[in-house]
Amino acid sequence: MNINYSTAAKHLGSSAVREILKLTQGKDIISLAGGLPGEDLFPLEAVREAYTRVLSSDNTVLQYGLTEGYDPLRDKIAGRLSAQGIPVSSSEIVLTTGSQQAIDLLCKIILDPGDAVLVEAPTYLAALQVLSSYRADVHTVTSDEDGMLPDDLEDKLRRYRPKLLYAVPTFSNPTGATWSEERRIKTVELCRRYGVLILEDNPYGEITFDESEGAYPLSLAAIDRSYNGGYCVVYTGTFSKIVAPALRTGWIVGDPELIRTLAKAKQAADLHSSTIDQRALDELLQGFDIGNHIRLISREYHTRMKLLSTELSSRGWEGAHFREPQGGMFLWLTLSQDINAAELLPLAVDKGVAFVPGEVFYPAQPMRNTMRLNFTHTPPQLVPLAVQRLEEALIMYQQRLLI
Amino acid sequence: MNINYSTAAKHLGSSAVREILKLTQGKDIISLAGGLPGEDLFPLEAVREAYTRVLSSDNTVLQYGLTEGYDPLRDKIAGRLSAQGIPVSSSEIVLTTGSQQAIDLLCKIILDPGDAVLVEAPTYLAALQVLSSYRADVHTVTSDEDGMLPDDLEDKLRRYRPKLLYAVPTFSNPTGATWSEERRIKTVELCRRYGVLILEDNPYGEITFDESEGAYPLSLAAIDRSYNGGYCVVYTGTFSKIVAPALRTGWIVGDPELIRTLAKAKQAADLHSSTIDQRALDELLQGFDIGNHIRLISREYHTRMKLLSTELSSRGWEGAHFREPQGGMFLWLTLSQDINAAELLPLAVDKGVAFVPGEVFYPAQPMRNTMRLNFTHTPPQLVPLAVQRLEEALIMYQQRLLI
Repeated sequence: MNINYSTAAKHLGSSAVREILKLTQGKDIISLAGGLPGEDLFPLEAVREAYTRVLSSDNTVLQYGLTEGYDPLRDKIAGRLSAQGIPVSSSEIVLTTGSQQAIDLLCKIILDPGDAVLVEAPTYLAALQVLSSYRADVHTVTSDEDGMLPDDLEDKLRRYRPKLLYAVPTFSNPTGATWSEERRIKTVELCRRYGVLILEDNPYGEITFDESEGAYPLSLAAIDRSYNGGYCVVYTGTFSKIVAPALRTGWIVGDPELIRTLAKAKQAADLHSSTIDQRALDELLQGFDIGNHIRLISREYHTRMKLLSTELSSRGWEGAHFREPQGGMFLWLTLSQDINAAELLPLAVDKGVAFVPGEVFYPAQPMRNTMRLNFTHTPPQLVPLAVQRLEEALIMYQQRLLI
Repeated sequence: MNINYSTAAKHLGSSAVREILKLTQGKDIISLAGGLPGEDLFPLEAVREAYTRVLSSDNTVLQYGLTEGYDPLRDKIAGRLSAQGIPVSSSEIVLTTGSQQAIDLLCKIILDPGDAVLVEAPTYLAALQVLSSYRADVHTVTSDEDGMLPDDLEDKLRRYRPKLLYAVPTFSNPTGATWSEERRIKTVELCRRYGVLILEDNPYGEITFDESEGAYPLSLAAIDRSYNGGYCVVYTGTFSKIVAPALRTGWIVGDPELIRTLAKAKQAADLHSSTIDQRALDELLQGFDIGNHIRLISREYHTRMKLLSTELSSRGWEGAHFREPQGGMFLWLTLSQDINAAELLPLAVDKGVAFVPGEVFYPAQPMRNTMRLNFTHTPPQLVPLAVQRLEEALIMYQQRLLI
């Protein structure tokens, strides 16, 4: 039978990262490609104990739950967010299947085909996939290392009348960059003035390499809530990076009416996410010092980032440069102008190392001489070898250019 | 801020069942309204042991998983379906967050606004909500107790050129009805001839009250796969009713290319569902006799259905009638023509019993003198009291009619 797909299906891109993972399957590859946290740091024992406690309760734990999610966990998330400067009540929170579902559901209730959306470039690939599936008209706001440029933002707010601005302002995927406080304030102010919703995607914000007081960057949501009258920022976070991804528990926070509408969309989408996972996280937050765990993984990721940074710097590749991220999971490497990282990739895989070519993170006009390197998943002792293999691939690439 | 929602959001209905649950909160109500399995029958101990075994493995169990779901569980589902006459390989299966997500994702990849979809009336409420959110043009095929009428089906296939036919042909929600084999064959044949996809939603099929050999109804998917050349049936099932809903694990089976497209949609929607839940189910299927468990709950549900049936019959309400379902979770009660069940509901809640008015299950032209009664969740000893309260509400309703 010939299947006649919807227009949305025709706009579903295949993920470049998945294609890369296929390339690497069954081979002795050191992968800096995946966006994976370090498995060795997962608090497996505490997680196991939490599930055991949850399932030692009565049979009602296995029944259907509320679409909005398990209430005590929503309360705890509200408490944690309030402590981070985002005063919310649990009724302003819906739990989702990872923050990916939060992005999808928000786009579903906000975007009609052709609606304009502003993003940074490069930005989170799977958000671009969602925007494409809703056939949004995606425009890039010019950014520097401190965030979106206010003049360009205002110009594009005027010109495109967007419905949504999407950003990962803290330890971004893919670049690791963090917006300055000044730019954060300016962005919220402009979006409020033009009545444009912001989706602040903050999966990495708590993984900071600076342990000093006040190092935690002020979120757009916190700035927004310091104003009177309505919210323009919708905020999403997840336990995937601070506990573990397999529990698939994220959250979305926003204007109460918007959150009610989003809950209706979630009800149609899947009734609710796993309450066993949500209850286990609620249990975990009671007995386990999550603050200490986050400090522990942040320190270890800092060490791993430094190791990768040192290895890359020591090579002195002509034209290559990068900035050390202050947190998160990724380092963004720019190579010499004449190198196309997508064409470099198969050579690198042949040599035994994988990365994500930077071009996939751009909605348009990609910088092809860039790549995203993950530093959290690869065992530290393999990092020098990974960089060595990358160098071998670069040498082979340059030789081909000369032929 | 004034939020400008998408057209899809404007088409998200609020669930009548949720509104009823709100009515009943905090009161001494016997609810026959929810679509809940009996909590007392959940295999909590076996589930706990399964989670413990999964989480006694190494740290990789907490890492991101495949969008399609945990491979060994897909294999086991393929094995179970093959034993039920649907020969599939695991590559034709995607695991979803309950079968609700399967319905949503299939609609997402198939339906554009205005596309025609054929359904029975009454049919599953949350499927109607999904169809509405994709702005499908929903048409009803006339049915009798054996399923859709072939002449009317063919007429509507010709007239509306639908993209999809949605049905719950076995122990339906809300009616409990089961299609005859002849009608199943005819429906598949006609849809194949007109090139129309069928979504066979089968959450209840294994909960059969007839234990004789061959009592298991032939699924539309099994019939479809007896033809050569392509599949027209997409099939969805779930562990929610045969193990427990909180694990939120369903599956969707279909044409391999369609399943690949659906996996792409799922990737954008939430990356993947909880792998901990999926692994726990995989463990459960190894050590636990699920066939025996399904027989056990089916027998108990049969007893509970008989109890409700006997209580209702013994009342002899004028004009009231119903057919005993042969399986599943629901009994569909038709009252005297002059009774509007939605108007009866607040009186019933006052008396201490709740049900779902039948009208919410119709896309149009509802039969207002109908109601859906769930017989699986209420403790058996409360059923006589529930029916007694329903009678008191009916008496009060009739008295009002007389005033």
